Amino acid sequence: MAITVVGSVAFDSIETPAGRKERCLGGAATYFSISASFFTSVRVIAVVGEDFGAAEEAVFDARGIDTRGIEHARGKSFFWQGSYLENLNEAKTHATELNVFADFEPKIPDSYRDSEFLFLANIDPVLQRRVREQMPGVKLVAGDTMNYWIKDHRPALKEVLKGLDVLLINDTETRMLAGNNNLVQAARGVLALGPRTLVVKHGEYGATAFFGDHSFAPKSDGSAHHPFRAPALPLEEVVDPTGAGDSFAGGFFGYLASRRELTPAILRRAMFYGGVMGSFACERFGTERLQKLTRKEIDERFTLFRELTHLD
Amino acid sequence: MAITVVGSVAFDSIETPAGRKERCLGGAATYFSISASFFTSVRVIAVVGEDFGAAEEAVFDARGIDTRGIEHARGKSFFWQGSYLENLNEAKTHATELNVFADFEPKIPDSYRDSEFLFLANIDPVLQRRVREQMPGVKLVAGDTMNYWIKDHRPALKEVLKGLDVLLINDTETRMLAGNNNLVQAARGVLALGPRTLVVKHGEYGATAFFGDHSFAPKSDGSAHHPFRAPALPLEEVVDPTGAGDSFAGGFFGYLASRRELTPAILRRAMFYGGVMGSFACERFGTERLQKLTRKEIDERFTLFRELTHLD
Repeated sequence: MAITVVGSVAFDSIETPAGRKERCLGGAATYFSISASFFTSVRVIAVVGEDFGAAEEAVFDARGIDTRGIEHARGKSFFWQGSYLENLNEAKTHATELNVFADFEPKIPDSYRDSEFLFLANIDPVLQRRVREQMPGVKLVAGDTMNYWIKDHRPALKEVLKGLDVLLINDTETRMLAGNNNLVQAARGVLALGPRTLVVKHGEYGATAFFGDHSFAPKSDGSAHHPFRAPALPLEEVVDPTGAGDSFAGGFFGYLASRRELTPAILRRAMFYGGVMGSFACERFGTERLQKLTRKEIDERFTLFRELTHLD
Repeated sequence: MAITVVGSVAFDSIETPAGRKERCLGGAATYFSISASFFTSVRVIAVVGEDFGAAEEAVFDARGIDTRGIEHARGKSFFWQGSYLENLNEAKTHATELNVFADFEPKIPDSYRDSEFLFLANIDPVLQRRVREQMPGVKLVAGDTMNYWIKDHRPALKEVLKGLDVLLINDTETRMLAGNNNLVQAARGVLALGPRTLVVKHGEYGATAFFGDHSFAPKSDGSAHHPFRAPALPLEEVVDPTGAGDSFAGGFFGYLASRRELTPAILRRAMFYGGVMGSFACERFGTERLQKLTRKEIDERFTLFRELTHLD
């Protein structure tokens, strides 16, 4: 089933201990859609500037991603500059230029309206909400956010959270959103804001799903809302962690959208696929590794993650 | 098979967000031996002062731990005072008083000499080495260390590492010991110093075993020295993380010592038992929770950890 994703399509200049790269194609919607495209059909809503040309378009085309919802505006695309020199787990932002994103009014092509899955990537919660309202018929809505919106745009964010089936954020964001340093208690606080399921991403340590209702929870007898943890493995070489979280979300949501049923077992596998896609994303700068990936490599790493974290 | 453990038996004054406790029974050898005692018979080598009385002795007796190797010296026992007010994952040390430990000369009772397993808990590597040399007949030797010894006693520590079958340390210690921030590369660096297997403890995220030779490695075809990761689950309430790592080591090594064979599958289960024991240790101050534990509770949590991290 098709996913519509709204979020940023951008250019990133990135410096890591492995080197630096100027103006690679990036943005949450870009990583998400390339990652999800290995599992299902993907449609993007975003805005780009005049610097987004044939070469960038070709990246989406090569993965069969529908870009009819990418608006081309006058001016420059969203631009981010950051580095990971001291800490590979946390970017230091040097510049953020909204450019064409400053006046973005998401418009949804008619051809997107039968999408059953909607992903609200990390953008202004006001925009997330507008897209959500224009797609009342979707079956499952997931979303992401970040510290900036949690700190300074909480009322708008809270409106979005109310309608989410799955929220995917990291440890720090979970603690910040709930105002609680204990992860389990923080997760409960976040679930109380609306999302039915919370997926907390732990980077190289995997991710944990917390359940606000029983639909995805591992125990069907209702005895406990136990979390589920999908482990990941540490990587030999992290070239560039940019987009790993969005790639996780793409693998996770793409896999869910590729299945007829949504069961606890399917959710578990989706978490593993999320970890797999996140791990690939880190292996090269920007989307380079994701562009060259094959489904066979994805399934091999899935098997590896399973083998190397399971008892038998 | 019996384990002999050498390490500190101490009193700890601890402050955490959950409260404070003065002079609880603590020390690496204490946590380790109570934890391991649920799996096999345990013999302790340590030194205590005149403040170690019947109440403390009773804690060891209740778990059937052999204390004939605990020397009673004039003076006070090792004392540590610390807090975890800002960060539950890292203790802030306020006072360390070596007391009777300053002149400790480990002596091994004859009745300990048939121990097949030896655990060198976190103490001065010079003492670790002396004990190791006095027990040439052991089958498996594991050990722990900490940043203090890594930074300022590296030559003595390196001598100990050469003879270890398993080294158990945390992420930060692994990176510090190898001088490399990438965990996979750091692990390889540590293995090059001698240990045949390195178990890196990640706190609430579980632990990862890295293999320097094939004896424990998951793939017996030699195609890869893949690591194995045992996940853990975040806890609702962390009352006091003191001793969690030593309790992990006790569960891990105790389970290994309880088995006839040492295979990759047994090592995986040992890692899970380590995580289980570490998680219990955090639930109360000091060794309180471990003292009241039953094997049934241990096995139930083992099953829970497995269920909530495994795909099927």
